[in-house]
Amino acid sequence: MIDARTSPALIIGTGLVGASVGCALVAAGVEVHLRDATPSHALVAGSRGAGTIDPVEPLDCNLVVVAVPPAHLAEVIAAALAEFPSATVTDVGSVKGAVLADLRARGLDLGRYCGSHPMAGSQHTGPLTARADLFTDRTWIITPHDTSSAQAVLAVQHMARACGARLVTMAAGHHDEAVAQVSHVPQLMSSLVGAGLLDVPPEHLRLAGQGLRDTTRIAGSDPRLWQDIIAANARAVRVELTEILADLQRLVQVLDDPAEVRDFLERGRRGVRLLPGKHGSSASDFAQVVVEIPDAPGALARLFSDIESAGVNVEDVAIDHAPDREVGFLTVQVSPAKAASLEGVMVAAGWIVRPQG
Amino acid sequence: MIDARTSPALIIGTGLVGASVGCALVAAGVEVHLRDATPSHALVAGSRGAGTIDPVEPLDCNLVVVAVPPAHLAEVIAAALAEFPSATVTDVGSVKGAVLADLRARGLDLGRYCGSHPMAGSQHTGPLTARADLFTDRTWIITPHDTSSAQAVLAVQHMARACGARLVTMAAGHHDEAVAQVSHVPQLMSSLVGAGLLDVPPEHLRLAGQGLRDTTRIAGSDPRLWQDIIAANARAVRVELTEILADLQRLVQVLDDPAEVRDFLERGRRGVRLLPGKHGSSASDFAQVVVEIPDAPGALARLFSDIESAGVNVEDVAIDHAPDREVGFLTVQVSPAKAASLEGVMVAAGWIVRPQG
Repeated sequence: MIDARTSPALIIGTGLVGASVGCALVAAGVEVHLRDATPSHALVAGSRGAGTIDPVEPLDCNLVVVAVPPAHLAEVIAAALAEFPSATVTDVGSVKGAVLADLRARGLDLGRYCGSHPMAGSQHTGPLTARADLFTDRTWIITPHDTSSAQAVLAVQHMARACGARLVTMAAGHHDEAVAQVSHVPQLMSSLVGAGLLDVPPEHLRLAGQGLRDTTRIAGSDPRLWQDIIAANARAVRVELTEILADLQRLVQVLDDPAEVRDFLERGRRGVRLLPGKHGSSASDFAQVVVEIPDAPGALARLFSDIESAGVNVEDVAIDHAPDREVGFLTVQVSPAKAASLEGVMVAAGWIVRPQG
Repeated sequence: MIDARTSPALIIGTGLVGASVGCALVAAGVEVHLRDATPSHALVAGSRGAGTIDPVEPLDCNLVVVAVPPAHLAEVIAAALAEFPSATVTDVGSVKGAVLADLRARGLDLGRYCGSHPMAGSQHTGPLTARADLFTDRTWIITPHDTSSAQAVLAVQHMARACGARLVTMAAGHHDEAVAQVSHVPQLMSSLVGAGLLDVPPEHLRLAGQGLRDTTRIAGSDPRLWQDIIAANARAVRVELTEILADLQRLVQVLDDPAEVRDFLERGRRGVRLLPGKHGSSASDFAQVVVEIPDAPGALARLFSDIESAGVNVEDVAIDHAPDREVGFLTVQVSPAKAASLEGVMVAAGWIVRPQG
């Protein structure tokens, strides 16, 4: 597994992602060195098994992974290219185009640089939370540019594979457009709905159901993190948001026209049905069984135990709590062929199953 | 429990809601009669225990519950006021102002009319799905107007209580504003994000995570049902949507200004934090424990069984599946005091617990 393209490696920036890359590479047999503007972070990462804080010999270093905050990426990448003259340099930033443009504006030879973006959890809270399997089977997008050398691309691919990730390759601009569409714009739209609630009287908010909660869940994310992401991808986000703005303007105009509203709602449903379900299947491939659950310790355990006795593999679950009420409803997604038998078993076991349409 | 204000009662329209009102009132001892433009529906509802299809004596009838589709509400309410000269007449429509305006435009004496809106599940699929406990502990909004008689208001309150619901009283316009804010606008915004996905290439959609799925979940709802709701509440929805449109226009303009974007994101987070959690507590009152689960039959049952052995009451759960991967992550919300001991028990039982920030 050890490969001369990736070992020895230097990780610059030992937050959750940087330190986890270190742990994963160490586990894969790579010699990993750690550096952080806050030395105690590198020390903690080292104690978590992410590598050594001993400095790497600049001429020996084969791979530099830059995992610093977005605002410092270009500067640190440029410095790494200069300091480590034979190393491939990559970064793990979640926006790629702006960094590449900044690097190009510096007039550097970027043959040894190839960007990347591991799509791992967003609970970025420092080196203590590092884990070697953070990237296992997660998507890791590799973003070569037109002057990336084949060796640099291969080194970054090798690193991502060593971390257990699944590789997707895209140009930086293409990447930024994709994440604007599937991540950044949905984030902003959720925040938009959330911000609208500031003017809603508390007695109206009391009437809120699960739909509003789902729609605004990600609006609860860390504004600092998202401020940097949106700033770095403002151009791609603006393109998408402008189209959505036009669609919303049109909707406000046609709100009195049921046929137009119907068309709008149909488009929304068609769009959401394009989303791949887990394991590549579409959400509509599953049937739902809705069971009432008392809100008491053990109820869920008994419920899942009864579901297990039906021999049914649960694809997904959601709990919807009735407002002001000590019960909830558990929606269980199962394969359609199993729904009827599951309902039968649940009813026989004394659970209240809500009839489905 | 039987009250001269509500018995005998006539239900007009025996879909899920009408037939369930019948079942609940029958269970409360009320003499219930059923009528439907499709007589076989009334017959099915009767067989489900919702009442009798024998006609009610017009002069005896004390309560009429109109549960027909939105487009026919005013017409059927007006006819009921004329046909049953001593009955209180109510309806169960999810928008109140337009119907009231329509009734007023007919020049009727509306003293015996008082609108209402039971906030029960939206799986409206006909009388076969009726159940007496559909409204148990659900919110039922009573919307008296300025000429509703006290007797009419009391009769509708009595009916809603007999169905086991919790009562909230609001004027029709107030009601429509509230549901526009917490239900209709979020629905349209979810559809807006969903419609935006129609132009997104499939290889980008593959990168979608749970955030996009949550934001667009309700965009999968029935367009026919929502077309009617939006049409009936277009005025209140337009007011809210126009404010959101202005906020979105402003966001597109300031997208390059990190401080403005930060302010926008902060407002979104503040807004979503105003939403009451279940049992009146706020979502931030709970701590999260995230456990990795293999995607195999029985894994969830064992997991919940181990959670049970920790003596912890689960407040909420969510499953997040890693794309293209046969595992998921279960996020369990528990009281903060219990989070550490739950984590300890789970780790001891061999589960992989994801570190939290």
